[in-house]
Amino acid sequence: MSTETKPAENTTSRTLVLTRLINAPREKLFKAWTTPELLKQWFAPAPWTITHAEVDVRAGGSSLVVMRGPEGQEFPCPGIYLEVVPNERLVFTDAYTKAWEPSEKPFFTGVITFEDEGGKTRYTARALHWTDADREAHEKMGFHEGWGKCADQLEALAKRI
Amino acid sequence: MSTETKPAENTTSRTLVLTRLINAPREKLFKAWTTPELLKQWFAPAPWTITHAEVDVRAGGSSLVVMRGPEGQEFPCPGIYLEVVPNERLVFTDAYTKAWEPSEKPFFTGVITFEDEGGKTRYTARALHWTDADREAHEKMGFHEGWGKCADQLEALAKRI
Repeated sequence: MSTETKPAENTTSRTLVLTRLINAPREKLFKAWTTPELLKQWFAPAPWTITHAEVDVRAGGSSLVVMRGPEGQEFPCPGIYLEVVPNERLVFTDAYTKAWEPSEKPFFTGVITFEDEGGKTRYTARALHWTDADREAHEKMGFHEGWGKCADQLEALAKRI
Repeated sequence: MSTETKPAENTTSRTLVLTRLINAPREKLFKAWTTPELLKQWFAPAPWTITHAEVDVRAGGSSLVVMRGPEGQEFPCPGIYLEVVPNERLVFTDAYTKAWEPSEKPFFTGVITFEDEGGKTRYTARALHWTDADREAHEKMGFHEGWGKCADQLEALAKRI
């Protein structure tokens, strides 16, 4: 595993970025992102778990992931895909719960890219926020640790599938 | 011209709706919505005008319309298309300025539908807001009068094109 800080496109002060060079093909990472049974195995940082995952992977399609914390509390995370390019790019947001119903609070838009790099995959997850305050809140919620741990889990899973 | 209050799909307390039965084919109304030179002729309620209109009419494409008020002040309105179904449906929002850069303030999502109805077109414009406060503000800004006047202008234009 290597962690680097390659600048990502469109980075602003309201953006958080995690980038990794992962020793797995793009196709496996994309599959892990878009298959509910696989998503459940890596998308929450342990000891958090995913109790429910449904995804309609197409622009305008909904997703619903329910995370469970170590004390049993459940957090439903509804969202929608904005752009899907198989094995290359996924864009989603919590600004809508379905096409095109505004959510209670637009918090962030996720842009996930998968690029070939020296026989491995450059995996970059960007979280774009509408406000500086939300970016700060996301950082304090543990964005780097949480998404970093998930990336570790994703990499480990990619080796098994 | 007839104005009715047919309930629209997905209507919530955060939604404003304008619906009209317009004596013009769907294709002409869609063309007036998606052609910059035509858009300029109806999309601002007189005496407001449009000084600039550029539209990239596809999901993820940007639009930029600049409105000019009667005293010369200009208001740029950047946005993005979320869904485009030719002659049927247009969805856009000001929550992004381009794919997928969050705007300063996500205010509303517009869902415009064009349906055949008795040889005319049922034209429905819905404005979906993230908060009740924004819906109220939009209403106080004159949503019904403004969008209504624009619909009059759209109908008049459709007869000339």
